[in-house]
Amino acid sequence: MRVAIIMGSTSDLNKVEPAVGILKEYGVQVDVRCLSAHRVHTELSEFIEECNHNGCEAIIAAAGMAAALPGVVASQTVIPVIGVPLSGAVLDGMDALMSIVQMPSGIPVATVAINGAKNAAYLALQILGTSHPEIKEKLWEHRQKMHEDAKKSNEEMIAKFK
Amino acid sequence: MRVAIIMGSTSDLNKVEPAVGILKEYGVQVDVRCLSAHRVHTELSEFIEECNHNGCEAIIAAAGMAAALPGVVASQTVIPVIGVPLSGAVLDGMDALMSIVQMPSGIPVATVAINGAKNAAYLALQILGTSHPEIKEKLWEHRQKMHEDAKKSNEEMIAKFK
Amino acid sequence: MRVAIIMGSTSDLNKVEPAVGILKEYGVQVDVRCLSAHRVHTELSEFIEECNHNGCEAIIAAAGMAAALPGVVASQTVIPVIGVPLSGAVLDGMDALMSIVQMPSGIPVATVAINGAKNAAYLALQILGTSHPEIKEKLWEHRQKMHEDAKKSNEEMIAKFK
Amino acid sequence: MRVAIIMGSTSDLNKVEPAVGILKEYGVQVDVRCLSAHRVHTELSEFIEECNHNGCEAIIAAAGMAAALPGVVASQTVIPVIGVPLSGAVLDGMDALMSIVQMPSGIPVATVAINGAKNAAYLALQILGTSHPEIKEKLWEHRQKMHEDAKKSNEEMIAKFK
Amino acid sequence: MRVAIIMGSTSDLNKVEPAVGILKEYGVQVDVRCLSAHRVHTELSEFIEECNHNGCEAIIAAAGMAAALPGVVASQTVIPVIGVPLSGAVLDGMDALMSIVQMPSGIPVATVAINGAKNAAYLALQILGTSHPEIKEKLWEHRQKMHEDAKKSNEEMIAKFK
Amino acid sequence: MRVAIIMGSTSDLNKVEPAVGILKEYGVQVDVRCLSAHRVHTELSEFIEECNHNGCEAIIAAAGMAAALPGVVASQTVIPVIGVPLSGAVLDGMDALMSIVQMPSGIPVATVAINGAKNAAYLALQILGTSHPEIKEKLWEHRQKMHEDAKKSNEEMIAKFK
Amino acid sequence: MRVAIIMGSTSDLNKVEPAVGILKEYGVQVDVRCLSAHRVHTELSEFIEECNHNGCEAIIAAAGMAAALPGVVASQTVIPVIGVPLSGAVLDGMDALMSIVQMPSGIPVATVAINGAKNAAYLALQILGTSHPEIKEKLWEHRQKMHEDAKKSNEEMIAKFK
Amino acid sequence: MRVAIIMGSTSDLNKVEPAVGILKEYGVQVDVRCLSAHRVHTELSEFIEECNHNGCEAIIAAAGMAAALPGVVASQTVIPVIGVPLSGAVLDGMDALMSIVQMPSGIPVATVAINGAKNAAYLALQILGTSHPEIKEKLWEHRQKMHEDAKKSNEEMIAKFK
Repeated sequence: MRVAIIMGSTSDLNKVEPAVGILKEYGVQVDVRCLSAHRVHTELSEFIEECNHNGCEAIIAAAGMAAALPGVVASQTVIPVIGVPLSGAVLDGMDALMSIVQMPSGIPVATVAINGAKNAAYLALQILGTSHPEIKEKLWEHRQKMHEDAKKSNEEMIAKFK
Repeated sequence: MRVAIIMGSTSDLNKVEPAVGILKEYGVQVDVRCLSAHRVHTELSEFIEECNHNGCEAIIAAAGMAAALPGVVASQTVIPVIGVPLSGAVLDGMDALMSIVQMPSGIPVATVAINGAKNAAYLALQILGTSHPEIKEKLWEHRQKMHEDAKKSNEEMIAKFK
Repeated sequence: MRVAIIMGSTSDLNKVEPAVGILKEYGVQVDVRCLSAHRVHTELSEFIEECNHNGCEAIIAAAGMAAALPGVVASQTVIPVIGVPLSGAVLDGMDALMSIVQMPSGIPVATVAINGAKNAAYLALQILGTSHPEIKEKLWEHRQKMHEDAKKSNEEMIAKFK
Repeated sequence: MRVAIIMGSTSDLNKVEPAVGILKEYGVQVDVRCLSAHRVHTELSEFIEECNHNGCEAIIAAAGMAAALPGVVASQTVIPVIGVPLSGAVLDGMDALMSIVQMPSGIPVATVAINGAKNAAYLALQILGTSHPEIKEKLWEHRQKMHEDAKKSNEEMIAKFK
Repeated sequence: MRVAIIMGSTSDLNKVEPAVGILKEYGVQVDVRCLSAHRVHTELSEFIEECNHNGCEAIIAAAGMAAALPGVVASQTVIPVIGVPLSGAVLDGMDALMSIVQMPSGIPVATVAINGAKNAAYLALQILGTSHPEIKEKLWEHRQKMHEDAKKSNEEMIAKFK
Repeated sequence: MRVAIIMGSTSDLNKVEPAVGILKEYGVQVDVRCLSAHRVHTELSEFIEECNHNGCEAIIAAAGMAAALPGVVASQTVIPVIGVPLSGAVLDGMDALMSIVQMPSGIPVATVAINGAKNAAYLALQILGTSHPEIKEKLWEHRQKMHEDAKKSNEEMIAKFK
Repeated sequence: MRVAIIMGSTSDLNKVEPAVGILKEYGVQVDVRCLSAHRVHTELSEFIEECNHNGCEAIIAAAGMAAALPGVVASQTVIPVIGVPLSGAVLDGMDALMSIVQMPSGIPVATVAINGAKNAAYLALQILGTSHPEIKEKLWEHRQKMHEDAKKSNEEMIAKFK
Repeated sequence: MRVAIIMGSTSDLNKVEPAVGILKEYGVQVDVRCLSAHRVHTELSEFIEECNHNGCEAIIAAAGMAAALPGVVASQTVIPVIGVPLSGAVLDGMDALMSIVQMPSGIPVATVAINGAKNAAYLALQILGTSHPEIKEKLWEHRQKMHEDAKKSNEEMIAKFK
């Protein structure tokens, strides 16, 4: 099982890194790249071409500002592309969200929340889960854990305000 | 191969229907439902539970305004959920976009453009494509056709302005 | 007299807690819960069902980002539901406001200001006040106090700039 | 049972009128007024004072643009005030929403969706329902009807796309 | 010559105070008040009534969030009212701007920039200047000074980058 | 008594014309100009210079999009300048509002609502009213008429819903 | 003299065509293409490569929604690229503006107004004008004409309101 | 080769200064000025007139808030004008962006990202590059360097996550 993560700039690393960890926990091979759509488009195309042939099942693309990366990736593959809009110095990531989610017909990008790299990883896992039952099972276990944690939080809250 | 499409209201039908057509062209069984998260949550939960067990590989959820539907669906399944924000009488769908894309950690919704039902269908097909090679192949053919059409448009444009 | 307060995450506690204090000052029994619409929807439904039968007269639901909680609560009760949009890491709470206030016909959520938990408490008290004269009276006393405080502030200002 | 509805201008009537109908269906006495906060503030104050003493249990205030009306009403009563932001010639009602929902501490306005007069009526009924069991019962019946209608819509959708 | 300054809350003082200083430099009598439209509307009305009869020639009203104050003042006087939208904890003052500038026909508020108390003072002086030639003259001198300062800044910049 | 009205383009005329009518009703001499800050800045400066010496007591400047006109006018006079942001083909006038209201310190523009030419006229009259008692009196009469009209509207509404 | 115009879709033609006319009036050879960054990226790259060697002095790129085109073009050339954000079915072109103007460091796009194809043409001409004196001269003549037209408009306005 | 940089206020210097450095690296003579459109319009006009005759090939104009400067400069020259919207105390520079990019037909401003002074410099260099082959060559070298740096970043990323 293989998922690619592409970020536009090394400065995005701290926002993107949590996705790597989550995917690795699930035993997924993660190919991390830093390939700006605006700076190394040939290398980007080469890497997408690699993904098209190496069994990659989802590509996460994270970018800020005029975030062309996810759309450019999506235009060169039919592997599902997950776009993560990143907040920048100004505008709180609304610019990146607009640049990623408003894709034209035929070239979808699966957009998650601003700075939502973790959810990008979970979405990639869900896509893997459609054909890898062991991933699907682990996702249900994770949900179960979220559920238990949430119940514990609730009990703490009840206790606190009794 | 099976994909579910859920809309929040029958008034959304004309915006959602194009997705049904695209999926059927690819030979996908489409289960269409009108199940508001706010009006029939038990029936919605029952249908999601069905999806969890009937081989459904992606769920498209389309809704406008305070569009809770995609998130509520996503919280009850680990099948990938694709959210389609719909424009309404006012606000151009920004309210629905905010309500769908800004999901909390652990429960992703793969959000597409405002009124982007077609792309929701293509994204669902890409997800199917990760394990159904015939879908992937058809998607590449569709891209090829988009490519040819785009080249023809370009040639017409060149001719027009020669 | 009984009011429920539900928050979506323990991280919302510091923004929600002022509401608890205000309600308790008025002698209201407050049932505080941490029940995310996306993580523990069964427990949430059970709690709403409890509220539907334990004499609860208003439910305050506070959530950030794609804040489905208040709407989901509102869809399972005819007790007035007060929604508090919370600001998050980005977007200043506009995402939560859009997700809470733009409810479809038939399922209202009484939305207060971003991070407006105090006003959620006062609104709950006003609702109680419609049938509990002692609460109404205390609210008028509180207004009177606000009035006196405001007059004092004004006098200080007059003195300062004389 | 008595509810007041105040609009800022006669041009708001068509957007506000649905609320009157809903409330009357539930046997509520509705006092409709057209009292701009900016044009007839004395008459507005007199009417609020009347509401404070005639058994009125909720006040709906609808206004567009710099919509001061709901807040001004709220400042002169401890009856719950429901604010309806109305869309105008430009800005889609975002100006009115900001002017109504962002109230200072101590003076809440229960804000509903832009042009959401129907929900204002349902919210008023829910408030009445906290102490009038017959209203509460009728609201549950209405929910039941919404539920049945929604199920029918769903069945039609299933039939349509079989 | 007399100008009134009204703020909605003592917490606005540091944003409003620069206006007082500017007006005093020009020899204007400044009546500073802290009178929230939502907390002390009677006292506010009394003070506006005072302004209507004490020779006041402009009223500056500064408020944040659902900033009803400037509009409420404007509705009770035909003295020019200058509105200053203040930024708050969230939303950067866009809520206050919308609440102040979008006034209905017949009741204008002269709105200045978010947190623009200084310009509110200069606008008040310009209004005084229409009938007090000494103020007009001082304003021209101030412009001349701004002009000289700006030219000096420019010369420094030229020197710096030579 | 003299007021100038400057618009940026003849296409703005229908949005600006109501201001001319109102001012003439009050016996004010109105100098109407079409002088874009971007197209005829010399003629604009000449006209502002004229206003600076011909007894003009307020200048109304209306413009859309990147609406520099009001600010440019304000920078060349100490007569109060009233800015009217106009809505254009797209963006509903928010671009013009931002361009007009967010003036730097020392150069205020008294901004009214988007397309608020009528209020620009009333604001100009209020400024005249500070030194022309007959204008002030007529403004009070107008308010009285607004008041009477509003009361009649209210009575009609009471009758309609009795 | 040569300028390229690239649009993302034939549906953009009516918004882009005015630019062609203006450039031709100035005797510029215009190469018009319809080359979506998302559909025909190889052909797009080939065309940009052509522009890099055929004496092209400016490239106008117009696109709507998640408008990656101008940025992608800019990343493959050091010829000045002018971006035209186009309004679409929803959002008034704000999505396209954010996607075009917020470019990362090192890859500028010269962004003009939403639907501002005419200004894109004039900007291209100004760039040509830096080294083609005959274009610069014609641009001054055009300004002169705009100036004369604006003066005539002003005279008409003076006459109309005399 | 000559480029002018104009800022509206000395407080903008730290945001503008990077542009000076980049231009100087390319051997361009840079004329830096601090000339507010609202404070020293005569000096501004004189400087633009100078630019019109001293061989200046591009003018960078940076301003915040109601940023009239770039448009005013553009209206007095046919040299390409590059506008840099600056973020201010509130609103993240959206006010400046709207004020700069939404120019009327015939007077374009080449707008770059909020706080995008570096890109303004690169855009100016690209304009110079259309007729100065040595600049064009250096820009390609810079791109090559960006390319190499980006490839190195990518290799580091690959190494880090191997």
